[in-house]
Amino acid sequence: MSEITFRTATKDDLGAIVSLLSDDELAENREKPVGGDGVAEEYARAFAAMEGEHYNRMLLAEADGRIVGALQLVFVPGLSRRGATRAIVESVRVVSDLRGRNVGTAIMKEAIRRAKDAGCALVQLTSDNRRSRAHLFYRRLGFEQSHFGFKKEL
Amino acid sequence: MSEITFRTATKDDLGAIVSLLSDDELAENREKPVGGDGVAEEYARAFAAMEGEHYNRMLLAEADGRIVGALQLVFVPGLSRRGATRAIVESVRVVSDLRGRNVGTAIMKEAIRRAKDAGCALVQLTSDNRRSRAHLFYRRLGFEQSHFGFKKEL
Repeated sequence: MSEITFRTATKDDLGAIVSLLSDDELAENREKPVGGDGVAEEYARAFAAMEGEHYNRMLLAEADGRIVGALQLVFVPGLSRRGATRAIVESVRVVSDLRGRNVGTAIMKEAIRRAKDAGCALVQLTSDNRRSRAHLFYRRLGFEQSHFGFKKEL
Repeated sequence: MSEITFRTATKDDLGAIVSLLSDDELAENREKPVGGDGVAEEYARAFAAMEGEHYNRMLLAEADGRIVGALQLVFVPGLSRRGATRAIVESVRVVSDLRGRNVGTAIMKEAIRRAKDAGCALVQLTSDNRRSRAHLFYRRLGFEQSHFGFKKEL
């Protein structure tokens, strides 16, 4: 694998991103990769909504001319911790044939660097209880497993 | 206690909100309630940043003419789960003299209602590992304790 480079996604990346989101044993049944003429309409709408926010982007890792990893990076201002802005990471994915090759570490480090440069006071994320290897991965990156994550579907 | 009413915060509520954020055994050392001429400047800046987002608000519960509870409610569009918008809840607080009187339940139910009305697909939050009563509280509200929460200070 050649050197990994990073960039934020544009609308043209949407098909590749949705394929990558589906390439996951816990998430595959939650996605709908292909719609009538390519990417299903709900993803295009969501991407436009993300672009309308101050900072809510898909960060992409590329190598050898293809997208090898992605995550959503969101900066959320708030009052707690003396008016701290939090960076929230969601939907971390690495293409299945390159797992275990440090793509995840590289894109997470890039996300942390971007959050720090933007003045965020902390980075936070949640990881499904069943993803025990991911938990070790985040702890190795310096995250504290200090919280429980609760979700309620509406 | 009279009936609880709900509204989103304005800048004039900032002093009361910061006092409430500090009224918590885990968070009190993280806040700085009073600055030179009232609320410390970093809170005013953060509040303005929140108001500049599409939906990032402090939801307040009031009873008997005072603020008795607060939480931060943020709607975050994203691609996962077929382009779902997530509602993220942060910084849930109830005034110390009214804990155990269902103020927390009332304001959380209001937040869930607002998230659903706005078309969010799920509500999510993290709770410090040490807050075991809070974990029970969220499970009773129908949340699944399905994730671990990771944080890294920058």
